[in-house]
Amino acid sequence: MALPHFQGIFPPLVTPLSSPDKLDVAGLERLIEHVLSGGVHGLFILGTTGEAPSLDHNLRKELIQRTCRQVRDRVPVLVGITDTAIVEAKEMSRLAANYGASAVVLAPPYYFPNSQTELVEYIERLAPALPLPLVLYNMPTHTKTMFELDSLQRLMEVENIIGFKDSSGNMLYYHQVLSSLSIRPDWSVLMGPEELLGEAVLFGGHGGVCGGANLCPQLYVDLYEAARWRNIERVLDLHHRVMRISSTIYRVGKYGSSFIKGLKCSLSLLGICDDFMSEPFHRFYDVDRARLHELLEELGVTVSNPYPASDDPVMTSLMR
Amino acid sequence: MALPHFQGIFPPLVTPLSSPDKLDVAGLERLIEHVLSGGVHGLFILGTTGEAPSLDHNLRKELIQRTCRQVRDRVPVLVGITDTAIVEAKEMSRLAANYGASAVVLAPPYYFPNSQTELVEYIERLAPALPLPLVLYNMPTHTKTMFELDSLQRLMEVENIIGFKDSSGNMLYYHQVLSSLSIRPDWSVLMGPEELLGEAVLFGGHGGVCGGANLCPQLYVDLYEAARWRNIERVLDLHHRVMRISSTIYRVGKYGSSFIKGLKCSLSLLGICDDFMSEPFHRFYDVDRARLHELLEELGVTVSNPYPASDDPVMTSLMR
Amino acid sequence: MALPHFQGIFPPLVTPLSSPDKLDVAGLERLIEHVLSGGVHGLFILGTTGEAPSLDHNLRKELIQRTCRQVRDRVPVLVGITDTAIVEAKEMSRLAANYGASAVVLAPPYYFPNSQTELVEYIERLAPALPLPLVLYNMPTHTKTMFELDSLQRLMEVENIIGFKDSSGNMLYYHQVLSSLSIRPDWSVLMGPEELLGEAVLFGGHGGVCGGANLCPQLYVDLYEAARWRNIERVLDLHHRVMRISSTIYRVGKYGSSFIKGLKCSLSLLGICDDFMSEPFHRFYDVDRARLHELLEELGVTVSNPYPASDDPVMTSLMR
Amino acid sequence: MALPHFQGIFPPLVTPLSSPDKLDVAGLERLIEHVLSGGVHGLFILGTTGEAPSLDHNLRKELIQRTCRQVRDRVPVLVGITDTAIVEAKEMSRLAANYGASAVVLAPPYYFPNSQTELVEYIERLAPALPLPLVLYNMPTHTKTMFELDSLQRLMEVENIIGFKDSSGNMLYYHQVLSSLSIRPDWSVLMGPEELLGEAVLFGGHGGVCGGANLCPQLYVDLYEAARWRNIERVLDLHHRVMRISSTIYRVGKYGSSFIKGLKCSLSLLGICDDFMSEPFHRFYDVDRARLHELLEELGVTVSNPYPASDDPVMTSLMR
Repeated sequence: MALPHFQGIFPPLVTPLSSPDKLDVAGLERLIEHVLSGGVHGLFILGTTGEAPSLDHNLRKELIQRTCRQVRDRVPVLVGITDTAIVEAKEMSRLAANYGASAVVLAPPYYFPNSQTELVEYIERLAPALPLPLVLYNMPTHTKTMFELDSLQRLMEVENIIGFKDSSGNMLYYHQVLSSLSIRPDWSVLMGPEELLGEAVLFGGHGGVCGGANLCPQLYVDLYEAARWRNIERVLDLHHRVMRISSTIYRVGKYGSSFIKGLKCSLSLLGICDDFMSEPFHRFYDVDRARLHELLEELGVTVSNPYPASDDPVMTSLMR
Repeated sequence: MALPHFQGIFPPLVTPLSSPDKLDVAGLERLIEHVLSGGVHGLFILGTTGEAPSLDHNLRKELIQRTCRQVRDRVPVLVGITDTAIVEAKEMSRLAANYGASAVVLAPPYYFPNSQTELVEYIERLAPALPLPLVLYNMPTHTKTMFELDSLQRLMEVENIIGFKDSSGNMLYYHQVLSSLSIRPDWSVLMGPEELLGEAVLFGGHGGVCGGANLCPQLYVDLYEAARWRNIERVLDLHHRVMRISSTIYRVGKYGSSFIKGLKCSLSLLGICDDFMSEPFHRFYDVDRARLHELLEELGVTVSNPYPASDDPVMTSLMR
Repeated sequence: MALPHFQGIFPPLVTPLSSPDKLDVAGLERLIEHVLSGGVHGLFILGTTGEAPSLDHNLRKELIQRTCRQVRDRVPVLVGITDTAIVEAKEMSRLAANYGASAVVLAPPYYFPNSQTELVEYIERLAPALPLPLVLYNMPTHTKTMFELDSLQRLMEVENIIGFKDSSGNMLYYHQVLSSLSIRPDWSVLMGPEELLGEAVLFGGHGGVCGGANLCPQLYVDLYEAARWRNIERVLDLHHRVMRISSTIYRVGKYGSSFIKGLKCSLSLLGICDDFMSEPFHRFYDVDRARLHELLEELGVTVSNPYPASDDPVMTSLMR
Repeated sequence: MALPHFQGIFPPLVTPLSSPDKLDVAGLERLIEHVLSGGVHGLFILGTTGEAPSLDHNLRKELIQRTCRQVRDRVPVLVGITDTAIVEAKEMSRLAANYGASAVVLAPPYYFPNSQTELVEYIERLAPALPLPLVLYNMPTHTKTMFELDSLQRLMEVENIIGFKDSSGNMLYYHQVLSSLSIRPDWSVLMGPEELLGEAVLFGGHGGVCGGANLCPQLYVDLYEAARWRNIERVLDLHHRVMRISSTIYRVGKYGSSFIKGLKCSLSLLGICDDFMSEPFHRFYDVDRARLHELLEELGVTVSNPYPASDDPVMTSLMR
């Protein structure tokens, strides 16, 4: 069977919740249709932006099932299976395969600090046992373990590993990874931080896993296309819009978690889904929500139907 | 109901496994009897030494049940409930209460980097919802989040938090924590690294969660007693034995994980339990196992019945 | 007096040495002419690549004098004055002004960990006392102190600070700095790591302080020009040459210091200057030197006149 | 010539300054007599507490000369020669020898991140060239480079290295260093953080380089003696006084630098010396100074003659 080659924008879907252990089912449906209508090339569920580690396993399973069922085969669905317990990771991959996902995504186990040798051997043992192709996920700020270049090159020899999502934010490393693709030209290398999407694709990357694409999917799709076709003027214009989102919406509140909180609150303000968050985070208090409302309006978004007041949100031309 | 005050040695039990998702039940029983026979003051299951984050949730539940049932009420059982998903942590605490555990132990959620404010609020929300008293667990090398002194002092105001296990290895911080006990004189402060047990107790701490007590429980019990009664000559003598274990058995192999691997392999060599390890680790290869065998003999242990060759291990006077 | 606005390539000159406290004077002269002949837009002496902190103060002073005298006013000379002792930094800036340098470059004092407040106040006190315009230098891997975005924005209000060299390697931060230039449109923002020069200039930066420009200055000048004129095809072609140098010449040897060692050894192999290094580093041993020789030849450089065998090196078309 | 073996309390002398490049000569004289009157076993000048890296080299030289001349041979003087430039370090050691110092103290060069190999080789090359015996100084928070245990054991083979000052604050490591002394029984191992002095000496260390001994030298001398003679009750009593200083005087102000600022300001309040500080720090503002005044009085110190109002301070029984 031909292995997939992922190119384009794969939003790391936020997980709409109505309580600690309940999906906001209607919100999830609206969110999926919202991002698909923006032309994204696939979905990535149960990543960092999806708060996956904070969700109990039953909820994760329900999310896989519902997402795959709704997307059907319109675009590939990638499912995060990162788990400190390998038994759970395997079970999640089995479910993803059953429900029709296209690939699974795995970051290193993140409790114990891993040596590079332990990391490589872990993946060499796990990958062949998975029922779906595997995309590796580099997220050292959260997992404490970086895929060092030598390790990654060694893992390029594992057949059913088909790509790499890099959220290290380290562009020098990213260029080194791209230079290594001579070993494995079929690999897909996706950029994590959306602020680096333009240059990542201009210099040879294959797309991005852009959190902001939950909110305004078309912006990132357009930026990807502009970079792919080396339309540098347009890349710069769209990049500046991305930076404007990044320096406003993601910076309300004080902490590293402002990014996810800002995204979820914005989606709530737009009437797409609930902004309930799983612990250790919680939704914005009113003052931050009001500030975000203002910022969205400054960005040209009419926030007329805050969730859950309406089931019929009028989506606006956010940031197009 | 009076809250417990824990004093003494609480071995962080290794989790005997026969496969990734199966307890080594006979090994667990032998291990429990082995440490109890050494006079320990309680057991702590599902900690770092117990590889808790690497175990699937069903196995964790079985371990809680079996341990509580076997210990009955001979000593208190403390159960680690640390989890990135709060729903799972609560479920684990509910089980622990049902099966008769004495307290639960919680480290910060360890995927997302937490701010101190987020950490404090997380615990302030969670603690009152738990059916058992709570011991906080400081393990910054693994969780990325330190309980800073100000945070800890604020959490001293939460009634059903009854103690603190500090595995930071930072003695200056430890002394500051002890100095803060005027706020909460009923708190129990336990030391993580066994190499610091002597001074921790001499200077006012209440005991230790010593990994080595899986192997030679009486040594740590004796050291605790000597320190408690300020018998400084004996403290020094026993401390040097602890250092000798630490600089030999825990340093076979190259990585941070050598400590757990060495412990499990030693227990296997002594005929107590299997040394199967959960991913991302694996048991020692033969060369490391042989080296460990030598080291144990140099320490005066007759390794006559390596597990699983015999069900009737002749326990030796290891390090007494 | 109009403040300068630096654009283009400013090689961070290596410091040719013949012994721990002696300049290789002839080598320095050759090196300066070599880089000037490549069309660079200025020189930066006494930076990290110049091993400045490892040089005694007398040697630093001689280097300032000789470099300024030789360059005369062909291009601006920027002089690093970073020092843990502010008295020495001021003295160095006074000398730089006397000898005709155009600006001074300053990283945070690097022994004591600084808070952001201490850092900002330090520079606010120092900058007005300097006889030359100041370029700030961000080098957190070495100084331990990052210029956080808020701090940098505050320092944009200091008039005789005229630019910023960023060697953090963090492109997301770099974009944020560029976005902040609305406060100070006359600032010059220069990229440290040469592997990021292409995108830095494409996205609005003003040039680079490229260590490799010691070796093949024209390559970096060409890349700068291509990026400035948004000739993306040419940018990619030249960027790949830069990556090839980076993944070969800078990776002989095992340590973080391989970059400087590789540069100096290459310059020696090309007959330009001595490769003596100041402590705690030392020049490559023969095996590494031989390996570097091979790599240079693979890159198309004829290494016919290794220093100091000849005073008349035939410079080759390295990497053009 | 017999190499010295240092035991006891060696205050890391603060450097009294009256301006950025001027010693407060009278303050220095008073300070030296003050600490000597407390019974300390030696002096350590030009360490971290002495702000050495922030002082220009002329001032450092004057300090060496004046201190050695005043101390004459009443106690050994240890001189910090740590410098990023080895030429300066050697020059400083030459001066120290000329003026009659007993030993020099050296931390790793602190700008470039060193590998362990580079660190060991640097010291192996430098030590034999020094005219005085050498004490190594471990200060990883400031130098970025830790003396790892293997490296330290290798350096134990260098004859004129005679001891080790550990300011890592890592007691587990400290115990490992003590365990290694079988290689070099004549080494002196001194503790940096004074909060760990009691246990360091109880468990086999040889003394401490206690910053607080600038202020109340006898307290630390008494604690050292109590620990040496294993008088555990007295150790605990004195340790609690040390902790009380540590949790009050060193915690005025917000930053890591509060320790040095608090010390210098206290000495000024006691009429001993000026509290001028070298950049990047500065003396306390009035509000912090007033707060410190209160704290000293709570500790039982009559602050009657703040410097420089009087030349005849009435020294009080601080913390005895």
